[in-house]
Amino acid sequence: MENGGAGNNYEGELNSKVTIKGILSLLMESIEGGGEYGDGKRKRVISLGMGDPSAYSCFHPPDVAQHAVVETLQSDMFNGYSPTVGLPQTRRAIAEYLSKDLPYKLSSDDVFVTSGCTQAIDVALALLACPGANILLPRPGFPIYELCASFRHLEVRHFDLLPERGWEVDLEGVESLADHNTVAMAIINPGNPCGNVYSQHHLRKIAETAQKLRILVIADEVYGHLAFGDTPFVPMGRYGSISPVLTLGSLSKRWIVPGWRLGWFVTTDPSGMFRKPKVVERIKKYFDILGGPATFMQAAVPRILEQTEESFFKKTINILKHNSDACYSRIKDIPCLSCLQKPSGSMAMMVKINLSLLEDIRDDIDFCFKLAREESVIILPGLAVGLKDWLRITFAVEPSSLEEAMGRIKSFCLKHTKPNLNI
Amino acid sequence: MENGGAGNNYEGELNSKVTIKGILSLLMESIEGGGEYGDGKRKRVISLGMGDPSAYSCFHPPDVAQHAVVETLQSDMFNGYSPTVGLPQTRRAIAEYLSKDLPYKLSSDDVFVTSGCTQAIDVALALLACPGANILLPRPGFPIYELCASFRHLEVRHFDLLPERGWEVDLEGVESLADHNTVAMAIINPGNPCGNVYSQHHLRKIAETAQKLRILVIADEVYGHLAFGDTPFVPMGRYGSISPVLTLGSLSKRWIVPGWRLGWFVTTDPSGMFRKPKVVERIKKYFDILGGPATFMQAAVPRILEQTEESFFKKTINILKHNSDACYSRIKDIPCLSCLQKPSGSMAMMVKINLSLLEDIRDDIDFCFKLAREESVIILPGLAVGLKDWLRITFAVEPSSLEEAMGRIKSFCLKHTKPNLNI
Repeated sequence: MENGGAGNNYEGELNSKVTIKGILSLLMESIEGGGEYGDGKRKRVISLGMGDPSAYSCFHPPDVAQHAVVETLQSDMFNGYSPTVGLPQTRRAIAEYLSKDLPYKLSSDDVFVTSGCTQAIDVALALLACPGANILLPRPGFPIYELCASFRHLEVRHFDLLPERGWEVDLEGVESLADHNTVAMAIINPGNPCGNVYSQHHLRKIAETAQKLRILVIADEVYGHLAFGDTPFVPMGRYGSISPVLTLGSLSKRWIVPGWRLGWFVTTDPSGMFRKPKVVERIKKYFDILGGPATFMQAAVPRILEQTEESFFKKTINILKHNSDACYSRIKDIPCLSCLQKPSGSMAMMVKINLSLLEDIRDDIDFCFKLAREESVIILPGLAVGLKDWLRITFAVEPSSLEEAMGRIKSFCLKHTKPNLNI
Repeated sequence: MENGGAGNNYEGELNSKVTIKGILSLLMESIEGGGEYGDGKRKRVISLGMGDPSAYSCFHPPDVAQHAVVETLQSDMFNGYSPTVGLPQTRRAIAEYLSKDLPYKLSSDDVFVTSGCTQAIDVALALLACPGANILLPRPGFPIYELCASFRHLEVRHFDLLPERGWEVDLEGVESLADHNTVAMAIINPGNPCGNVYSQHHLRKIAETAQKLRILVIADEVYGHLAFGDTPFVPMGRYGSISPVLTLGSLSKRWIVPGWRLGWFVTTDPSGMFRKPKVVERIKKYFDILGGPATFMQAAVPRILEQTEESFFKKTINILKHNSDACYSRIKDIPCLSCLQKPSGSMAMMVKINLSLLEDIRDDIDFCFKLAREESVIILPGLAVGLKDWLRITFAVEPSSLEEAMGRIKSFCLKHTKPNLNI
């Protein structure tokens, strides 16, 4: 018991880890505990904090998805265990879905079904972890990667995403960080938190860099297909023959069912490195200790992937485009905030705070807590995704709520702008 | 990439790990690939291999469970993320359900919702793992524990369950195995694979031993309430004030929905060791990297726990009792097999092979492969649960299938009995 619940070498690091949900809860609590500011009447809370638009009626999942799950549940054929790697028909359907955008065909054996993309991230990092190994992660990024790495004893090294170059990967930085203990680099495309979409040219360069360094690419495509700018979404797996790619994804974002926890871990690797019997055995054994998604949920996936209509996807894309444009132009109108790059994908964007224009805001955390208390608007401080004095704004909300929130953010910024600048 | 998918210190050990599903698949393949035995007509396959009775119509889940899930799904209120530790109403309902059998009240904060009991096992072992730590596991046991321990870098030491004493824990053995690096001991009650149910007296002794050794007790109660002998099921948490207990459970077995993947990890610990802020923080962060069960699935749990009728539970118990009695008396009738203890809980029992009576059976593995090929009956070799030359028979099947399978097992045994003994 001396050791019960106690530490490991990564403990100190772990304790310092902030999670998005943790910070957002604190912000919400500060609103609920507040009241010392303003006119006493608290405004309706609007959260631009989390990539979960399912609460808004304009982001309703497609009817076929719900029907499919009700059908498999009521069939009484899927109450029992599935193979831990996933039902064969589910693996096949995901392989076919992803193969449409690849120059080669995935097989069912390449696909492992997970409880959402979060579990797919953990599988990737846990399987790559070995004594001394390190992984290269983007900054800004998605903090679940850092948290998984801590728990799985994998050293993290951060490469930069370059805002002035559309949040492309700093590939020179990647090369200088990597050593012979580097096992992989991760990218998130379309980008969370940056809202960017990588060009084919850049994806190829990433693959070539990985090839040169002899590392894998983990391609987090949880926002796959949610691209609404000039650059179309191209999966990293297209360059899987240059360097092996682990593709992570889920139904969560494109089908707007994040709470359904249905994701995938896919070896997009035509070279077959992941088909070696020992590697397959290790992956399968890891899945034996995971609780995957419910069998009936898995059984609904083929119908969901095959029968969701194009019009549903278009509607989502249209709202996201409308919202991100609106958000971008409203930001332009606020002197102390700037967004270097119009978002073209995912559900979030990064906005820089010019603290020199503000009189009583210390940093991004201070900005977000004061904004929460004074205007009941929740935004994620950039520190939570690795960029201090930036903000991550999630624009996947009802358009009218976004409009209202942006108005309040503007008032807040003007109120806190240094007086001599406020004319 | 040199390290990609490569090993750790536990790799060699991991490679040697057999899984129940792995062996059962091999047995099934050997039937499908067979045909060299018998009269060419293959018999209908009957599996007494896995604790998943959901395929049999007599083990149909209660209607209220399915209705509850359809209702929460169709409400459209649970498509979004839940807190990673679980929905508040789900945690509360599980706390109330478990508190009924405890001398103290659990709070919602004690309950963490998991993807089945498998994920709860992994959470327990991953949270307890730290450099040098070891855990005491039962032999025979449930091999997912060993597999988790390998992946989470936790040394395993095995204590014996004593067949001649109703599969009680060899507590002297436990004491001699433990040292200052021992963090916990695990028990499975009602017992898998042994079909035993521990008395209150024995549970208290386990708690006292753990207290003396200053270790935790992990109480795997996935078969909770499935007791049909003279000894009633008593949760280990009743003795949580003697030594802190982590209680693991799920809907899987009692509600006969193993594929729904809805389980719990519960701190049954009135002393409050697990309420220390740092410990709570660590548990919460671990849940942040897990994909839990679907939110709508969680939302259905309160209704499932509250509204399932007693008659449903009684029906299951009656079938299990009938089947286990039938199984026990058929085994008594087969000279080369023996079952020291009539099962009184769970869905499985351990049967010893007397190899000296058989002429061409090398060991338990050989027994099971020949039985599969010759009689199309699948049984798990004891080696898979840690006891060589024993068998684990799962009796949670349709009574007529069990009857048929036992008949075939008898024929098989007689056919392979040494000729001079066969009169």
